[in-house]
Amino acid sequence: MSTDSSSALPSQPRREREIASWHEEFDVIVVGLGVAGGCAGVEANRAGARTLVLERASRGGGATAESEGTIYFGGGTRVQKAAGFEDSLENMLAHMTEAAGPTADPEKVKLYCEGSLAHFDFFESCGVEFKDTFYDEKVIFPPTDDCLIYSGNELAYPFSESAKPVPRGHKPKREGSAGTYIIESLIETLTKEGATIQNDAGVETLIQDDAGRVVGVVATVDDEERAYRAQGGVILTTGGFIFNKEMVARYAPDLAKCNFPIGNPKGCDGSGIRMGMGAGGAAVNMSEGLMTTPFFPPPTHIKGLLVNAQGNRFINEDCYHGRVTGAIMSKADGQAYLIVDDALYDEASQFVPYKIAGMGETVAELESELGIAPGHLVHTVESYNASAEKNEDPTHHKASKWVSPLNSPPFAALDLSVDKSVWAAFTLGGLDTKASGEVLTVDNQVIPGLYAAGRASAGLTRSGSHYASGMSIGGGSFFGRLAARSAAANKDS
Amino acid sequence: MSTDSSSALPSQPRREREIASWHEEFDVIVVGLGVAGGCAGVEANRAGARTLVLERASRGGGATAESEGTIYFGGGTRVQKAAGFEDSLENMLAHMTEAAGPTADPEKVKLYCEGSLAHFDFFESCGVEFKDTFYDEKVIFPPTDDCLIYSGNELAYPFSESAKPVPRGHKPKREGSAGTYIIESLIETLTKEGATIQNDAGVETLIQDDAGRVVGVVATVDDEERAYRAQGGVILTTGGFIFNKEMVARYAPDLAKCNFPIGNPKGCDGSGIRMGMGAGGAAVNMSEGLMTTPFFPPPTHIKGLLVNAQGNRFINEDCYHGRVTGAIMSKADGQAYLIVDDALYDEASQFVPYKIAGMGETVAELESELGIAPGHLVHTVESYNASAEKNEDPTHHKASKWVSPLNSPPFAALDLSVDKSVWAAFTLGGLDTKASGEVLTVDNQVIPGLYAAGRASAGLTRSGSHYASGMSIGGGSFFGRLAARSAAANKDS
Repeated sequence: MSTDSSSALPSQPRREREIASWHEEFDVIVVGLGVAGGCAGVEANRAGARTLVLERASRGGGATAESEGTIYFGGGTRVQKAAGFEDSLENMLAHMTEAAGPTADPEKVKLYCEGSLAHFDFFESCGVEFKDTFYDEKVIFPPTDDCLIYSGNELAYPFSESAKPVPRGHKPKREGSAGTYIIESLIETLTKEGATIQNDAGVETLIQDDAGRVVGVVATVDDEERAYRAQGGVILTTGGFIFNKEMVARYAPDLAKCNFPIGNPKGCDGSGIRMGMGAGGAAVNMSEGLMTTPFFPPPTHIKGLLVNAQGNRFINEDCYHGRVTGAIMSKADGQAYLIVDDALYDEASQFVPYKIAGMGETVAELESELGIAPGHLVHTVESYNASAEKNEDPTHHKASKWVSPLNSPPFAALDLSVDKSVWAAFTLGGLDTKASGEVLTVDNQVIPGLYAAGRASAGLTRSGSHYASGMSIGGGSFFGRLAARSAAANKDS
Repeated sequence: MSTDSSSALPSQPRREREIASWHEEFDVIVVGLGVAGGCAGVEANRAGARTLVLERASRGGGATAESEGTIYFGGGTRVQKAAGFEDSLENMLAHMTEAAGPTADPEKVKLYCEGSLAHFDFFESCGVEFKDTFYDEKVIFPPTDDCLIYSGNELAYPFSESAKPVPRGHKPKREGSAGTYIIESLIETLTKEGATIQNDAGVETLIQDDAGRVVGVVATVDDEERAYRAQGGVILTTGGFIFNKEMVARYAPDLAKCNFPIGNPKGCDGSGIRMGMGAGGAAVNMSEGLMTTPFFPPPTHIKGLLVNAQGNRFINEDCYHGRVTGAIMSKADGQAYLIVDDALYDEASQFVPYKIAGMGETVAELESELGIAPGHLVHTVESYNASAEKNEDPTHHKASKWVSPLNSPPFAALDLSVDKSVWAAFTLGGLDTKASGEVLTVDNQVIPGLYAAGRASAGLTRSGSHYASGMSIGGGSFFGRLAARSAAANKDS
């Protein structure tokens, strides 16, 4: 956990008139070099703006560098077509509308889908390559350099009812994780195309004029404060706040229960959200996040039965792992077992090594060991098995591919409970922005000169229970570019 | 629905220097004459402050006048003792800590418990009488003039484990509803003791000086604007926002699904919350509320089984009705049936006339009619009945008093789903305040001169799933008084 940002409270801006001298002037200043900042920097620079990207660490990276690098593209990308999948704008929009969650901004969702093919091209223009292949396994990401996967809920009920399922998770052409590759490609592009990158530059303070316009930032470089002026605007792409304990405690009590923060420990401390709030920006959707205990791979575990403390199922196990985990929190009070039989249990392939909460030669024995009231787990398994013989799951609609009877003793219960296993989490709340990236006040007024994108903003996707892998990098990079265009266009205003 | 407040956005204050002339000056100005405002007015006036209470309607009332008037007192009130119940500060604090919900302010909870006996005396000093009797039925409120009931989750699992259950809902001595009686008593007290009440005075605008201090309000009386100056402070007791559709849509999506707003249609439109936000106040807990579909009385219905769309139980049916309803929303996606048999069903005594979603001579028949996958509801009822023979509910811990087998055909399913029945709701979010009533900004700074209490603030109780009847009137009146003392003391600052 980062401790250098010990507060959950807004960071107050400095007044322009207090700035004795400016270190340097740019048109657009981007704070934070993750995927949102990197793409914003490239886009601003290409739009003809003198562009500075400030990065707190000694090299860019952000949460993206810690990730596998999946990007959510659709509507008929080159890779989708090559792999034999037919997607369309309408089909992508139908799924994304659901996937963005109930509190999403429909304008952002629509723009994202409409711009998806061009956004794919943008990444290629930055040297990010994608192989024209589909990886046909239920994985968190391909261990190979293959590209396309089903990275979300496309195939799972009820999402499968509202749009034709196609895969949209695109991992760049690198073995295993490709997050660093994305960032390095962006750094190379920024450098080659003439944008300025200043590493080791911590930014905790915005500079605002008396009319409320954000006109620059204070960065600490080599223990010295530098005031940078921004003619067009400042774009905050500083990430979420999962590594700021005080903010998580204050805003996102469910996420506070998760023991494994996802992101960049040196980055995701909410600094940009706090600066934006200090300048009058509203923070919204702050209680939401993605929570996950990734119980697959092995894919065989999807054939198991997820039950609550009463021995009842409560979600189709073939959903996106984040959706399943969200359901454990909201519907099962954070306590759940994955029931597997000997045929399904695959200890060696587990992504997370779960504790075995109980075992039995019969389900009745297992039930008794778990302290579940007699007959309940037995009924759950028996009734599931009876339908599974017909390849059906009439109660929870798990896709038939994952439906088969559990009948190879011994039976075991893996403990997926929030206080007993690895629960990873990151935040999905942040500054309220227009699709243009402009930061809004609590009364929907634009703060002139201030933009935000990526996890520093409440962006494309607002709910962990609807999310898919690739939507953070996808949304952050896309709306980072839109913010950059807005800020670049603003430089002559 | 009120339409004169068509916006969800903050109401901007007017600057003191724009006020050409003041209509009148007071020490403390209270905006809204419900229970919080009435008690604040009495308390401020008794503290020696020149006190004005402004009420939008032609007479005070607020949500309290629309309610049955239960007040949550404990720690050993005269009524509790007379009825043979032994309570203590520690016991009340143990329960209240849980009942206030996970996001509650522990300082407010502690003060409320410590001050409960004196608060009871305060109501008596305002002429509100309580009969020394206990009404021993599971009701929403006594239809008689009896006083004491179990108004919350005290007897229900898991609350029953953490504190000794005692009743704390105190209804004043009136047949049936007593909300108007409380308000009329406060109006009489205010008048008798020399406070000024101005009815038909709509307040939509605060007056703030250039340093940010709230120094008065603009009230519209007889179509004329009047600027009232407040030497000590302005106390917003304007109620929640359930009647402001835009605010509910923006802040509380679950509550937006409920079709029956609870409160005062002319009052609970969030006007005070919006004024406070306009002056820089933070609004917190805005997504929370109490939701309820009151499926008892008749009390026999508590012996029924509440099941989700898969035929599984998910909550002990003897909880407070609001807790049960909250569980229907969060754990059952808003869809639930109450399964009753012929012995339990009591159509005539129903508080809400539920539609019958299915009927059958056997549970299997009922299950099939409801479209539940074969065997699931049958198992739920059979396993419940088997334990119920022993008066036990091992899966959901319903108290034994309510546990008996369902075995008198025909069986029926009452539809309690959010889109099929009456779901009432009110809001539990509002301005962030200290226990003193001082309104806080997003960075925890006090806004000088501005106070809030009642549903205009995020008060004592923050969660519908933990709530008890009497906590809104209890908390609103209690913290209204604390705010009044703060504002009265502030008049010489």
